[in-house]
Formats: sequence, C-alpha cells, structure tokens
Amino acid sequence: MISETVKRGLNVSIGENCIIGENVIIHNNVTIYDNTVIGDNTEIFDNVVLGRPPKSAGNLVHKLKNKYPNLIIGKNCIIGVGSVIYIGTELGDNVLLSEYCCVREECKIKNYAVLGRHVTVNHSVTIGKRTKIIDKAILGSYVTVEDEVFIGPGVIFTNDNSMRLIGEQLGKESGPHLKKGCKVGANAVFLPGVIVGANAIVGAGAVVTKDVPDGELVMGIPARIVEK
Amino acid sequence: MISETVKRGLNVSIGENCIIGENVIIHNNVTIYDNTVIGDNTEIFDNVVLGRPPKSAGNLVHKLKNKYPNLIIGKNCIIGVGSVIYIGTELGDNVLLSEYCCVREECKIKNYAVLGRHVTVNHSVTIGKRTKIIDKAILGSYVTVEDEVFIGPGVIFTNDNSMRLIGEQLGKESGPHLKKGCKVGANAVFLPGVIVGANAIVGAGAVVTKDVPDGELVMGIPARIVEK
Amino acid sequence: MISETVKRGLNVSIGENCIIGENVIIHNNVTIYDNTVIGDNTEIFDNVVLGRPPKSAGNLVHKLKNKYPNLIIGKNCIIGVGSVIYIGTELGDNVLLSEYCCVREECKIKNYAVLGRHVTVNHSVTIGKRTKIIDKAILGSYVTVEDEVFIGPGVIFTNDNSMRLIGEQLGKESGPHLKKGCKVGANAVFLPGVIVGANAIVGAGAVVTKDVPDGELVMGIPARIVEK
Repeated sequence: MISETVKRGLNVSIGENCIIGENVIIHNNVTIYDNTVIGDNTEIFDNVVLGRPPKSAGNLVHKLKNKYPNLIIGKNCIIGVGSVIYIGTELGDNVLLSEYCCVREECKIKNYAVLGRHVTVNHSVTIGKRTKIIDKAILGSYVTVEDEVFIGPGVIFTNDNSMRLIGEQLGKESGPHLKKGCKVGANAVFLPGVIVGANAIVGAGAVVTKDVPDGELVMGIPARIVEK
Repeated sequence: MISETVKRGLNVSIGENCIIGENVIIHNNVTIYDNTVIGDNTEIFDNVVLGRPPKSAGNLVHKLKNKYPNLIIGKNCIIGVGSVIYIGTELGDNVLLSEYCCVREECKIKNYAVLGRHVTVNHSVTIGKRTKIIDKAILGSYVTVEDEVFIGPGVIFTNDNSMRLIGEQLGKESGPHLKKGCKVGANAVFLPGVIVGANAIVGAGAVVTKDVPDGELVMGIPARIVEK
Repeated sequence: MISETVKRGLNVSIGENCIIGENVIIHNNVTIYDNTVIGDNTEIFDNVVLGRPPKSAGNLVHKLKNKYPNLIIGKNCIIGVGSVIYIGTELGDNVLLSEYCCVREECKIKNYAVLGRHVTVNHSVTIGKRTKIIDKAILGSYVTVEDEVFIGPGVIFTNDNSMRLIGEQLGKESGPHLKKGCKVGANAVFLPGVIVGANAIVGAGAVVTKDVPDGELVMGIPARIVEK
C-alpha cells in the first residue's frame, strides 16, 4: 500500500506491509522496517531509519517485549537527516524532528511538536501538542511533557536516583512530569518523578530535586523558588 | 564541473551544477544537493549530507527564505561521518568537522576552525579562524565567535530569554558574541546577547548572564568575576 | 574470511582482509574499512561505519600515527544505527552501543559495557566491564572508567585545564580516573586528572575539581563532600 505519488531517492529500502500516503518524499538511503505507516505529505530526509526494533546485548534493566505495535507517523511531518524512530511509537501530524533525533519504542509525540537536533527520547515518553524541545535534550523513559511546553537546549530528565546497573525495571512514576505551558531554560536537570506545575519557569542550569508549584520560577542547584 | 581526479565511494549522489575540485575524496553514501561547491583536496566521509535546504512543518518562529546562496566548502577540509551542512553556508580552507556535526543555513566557518562530534550550529552563526569547538556544543542562531577561541565540551549558547513558542522572529542582537582568544570551560551556558571580552576565561559549568570584560575570569551560577 | 552465515542488508561495503564471524547480521548501508574483525552473533545496525582512520585538516594538537592496530569487535555485541568506531580500538563481548555513538582510536571497551545514544569517546579511553554510560556523555582522551560504574546522562570528562589551541600533546595523566562501582549523576563535569574513589557518588550537576575519596558523596560547584 504505497501510494503511486510517493517520491523515492536512491537506495531506499521499504519493508513488508508498509502503508505510505500521498505525496510522501523519501530521500536517499532511508531504511523503513516492516509494517510502518506514514501519512500524506510527510518528508523523510536522507539516512533516516524507521521502525527499528529494540535489542539487548544481555545487559539492560528494561525488559523488551516480543511484539510491539506498528510505528505510525502522521501527515505533513518532517523527519530530519539520520533520525531514528523505533517500532511501537506514534507521531501526530505536522511533527518536526530535526537531524539525528532518536525516539525509542512506545512513545507518543503529538501534533505540531518540534524536536531539535540530537534530541533523544527513551521508551514510553509522551510529548504534547505544539511543545518545542531544543537541541540535545535527553528525555529518560516514562517522562510526560504536556502541551505547549518549551524545553531549552541540553535539558536532561533522569528516572533513577539509585543509578543501578541491574535490578527491577522502573515504573511509570519514575519519569518527571511537566505540565502545560511551563518553560525550561538551557541545561536544567530534572531528578526522577518531579512534577513541574502549569506555566512554571525553570532557570538555566537549575537542578530540580522536588516539585515546582504552578506558575512559580525556580533557579539554582538545587532549584529554589525565587521572586519573578 | 566535477574534476576527473575526484574519488567516489559506493552509492554517492551528486546533484546538478555542483563544482568539485581536484583530488576530493567522497566516501560511501554521501548525498550532495544541487549547486554545492567543494574545494581541492577536501575529504568527505561516509553518510555526509551537503546542501540540504531548511524545511518547516508549520511550527517554526524563524521564517525560511525561498532561495539561499550555494553551499561553499573550501580546500583541504575534512567532513566527518554523517555531518550535515545546509545550503547557504560557507566553510573556509582546512576546516575540520568531526562526526555528526549539523550546520544550518547562512553560517560562516573560517579557515582552520575545528568542530568536534555532534556540534550543532543554528542559522546565521559566524565562527572565526583557528577556533576550536569541542564535542556537543550548541550554538544558537546569530552567535558570533571570533578567531582563536576555545569552547569546551557541552557549552550552550541561547538566544531567547522569553522561551517563546510563537511570535516575532529573533534579531541579530539575540546571539552571544565571544571575542578573540577567549576560553570557555565545559558545560558553560551563555544567555542571549551577552558579550565575552577578548582573552576572557569562563569556568566550567558557569551560567553567563551578563557581559564579561576583556581578560577577566568568571565562574559560578550566575557567573561572577573571580581573581585569577 | 567472511562466514557464510553472515546476513547482509542492502548496499553493505566490506573492505579487504576483514574477518567476520558466524551469524553476524549487517543491516543496510554499513561501511566496514579494511582489516576489521567482528565476532560471532554480533548485530550491526544501519549506517554504521567501522574502522575509520583518524584524519587531521592541519589543526589538531594530538599527533596521529601512520599505522594503528585493527579494529576488533567481540561476540554478541549490538552496534546501534550510525555508530562510528575508529581503527585501533577493541570491544569485548556483549557490548551494546546505542545510536550514533562515536569511539575514536586505541580505546578498550570491556564485556557487557553499555553506551547510550550519542556518547562520544575520544582516543585512548578504557571502559570497564558492565559499566553503563547513559546518553550524550563525553569522554575526553585518556579517561579510565573501571568496572561496574554508572555514568548518568550528559556527563563530561575534560582533559586540559589550559584549554590550548596548539602546543604539546596531552599525556595519560590528563584523563580523569573513575574507580570500581562509583556512580555519577546527570550533567556532572570532571576536571582533568581527578580520581574518583571506589563506590563514591557524584551528584547531578556537580563540577569535580579534586579527588573524591572511596565511598564518599560529593555535590555542588565545585563539588564538596556531604553527609549521606
């Protein structure tokens, strides 16, 4: 089910049972694994890899499943050079991924979200509508970022205070949760499970170790509330 | 106008009207878009993408132009595996980009500059002669870095205090400006529009919120002048 | 000496005199330079580049050799999409590299080590058994990380306090040394040559400017010992 209007570059590899919509543009050396779904008018730049399954070399805490849902990419998206999206993830419409983003399995990225260069998104992450995540942010597993959030360059979300090498896998509560409309400055770090309130502001370089109330401004290491 | 002395690897794609000089080496899976110019003796490693146009999925503050100048790369350059350089940018001679650098449109990178792995350079940035930028630095739009500057690993330049999702696009004054011979330690952050004086030193992890005078040493969050 | 059981994707390039073991899987667009050795059951994802030689454009302090040993990759390894490993490096068995890792020449990465996305490892680095390095860490040259160490996301190891553009190349003592079982929080920075004791803990965002005794917890900028 590949539309006749799809434009393919050189050396494009498309797996079995893929569904590719009208006017999709696929540039050179793109690899699309089996069962991937791509919506109308989406453009996939060179060297992108879509639908890769997760793999372990025997040394991961997180247990992998035998089967995942299909990768689904919406309409009017741009996928930048070399970006990699794993199986089991869902992108809405008009999503922009810049160069070399990596998004693991079972994530949801909603309409009009933007991810900058080299942004990495671990498994089971949700990113809201019109949210912008600037270059090189690192979203650990189970992070939730609601709609219309701004995340500056180099921001890091962690999910395991014990920094374990082995043991029980993490639960959903381990991921920080950023509520609608909050803004995060460059290079801020979130410790596991913290909740940042709606329209709160986190200063550049802050280390957020506890919850931030709605609308407050926090700064420093550890982050403390300051007057705006 | 592709010199007969050019060596091409497997699956190299060269667009229309490119000019490629003597003894250029192009490794496997390189994609070169139309009108790109490459000087003599330059070596382009595997999976590099040259001359990509910028694209929006409908969600960028920065307005894109309909037409940009050609991408011009000088003589004796090394372009590392997977690096991506957009249209409208100019590299001097003997420039070294390491693996997976991303340089957007309308930048100037001057002779003998070095960019480490995963360095990202947004649009309209200038980087001076013999300047070195170590791994994973993030240069926002309109940054100016003069000659012989050292920028340590993970340094971040921001350009928008208001962290907006929409609105008027930024002006040239939004980008920090680093003067000749200054040195910046690992993981430092520059807020929008700050000016760092000639031969000044910025300590590792500093957040620079206001201008630094020539020759001074600053450290901390926010960065303050300390005795050397 | 390529086993008949090797599975190759599209457009795979294998240089001369490579040795590739039983049941190795090589995905699309992989480039393998001459003399590379790959152990049984290892899986190499799309766009990986193995055995690249280092190159200078005339502007590096570190002197390159005329000849390096072969790249050797052990058994049961996973090499993620687009990762680049230079000549002269050795990976043990069951090593996992995620997407877009870059490992330079003359490194040793031991059994069951894990490197996250976009991790960069400069030349002459040692990484111990079962050590985990999360996304985007930057390991400068001559770093030693012993067995069973946890390094959080975005951690940076530096190796040159003088931040020189030219001059004598660095010696082995310039690289920080992390002893067995220590744990490092997100975004921490190590200054050149510091030694972190066995089972010590470094807090998120710390800048480690001097040695940390065995078993102690340090936090802050600069990092100081705190009660656990």
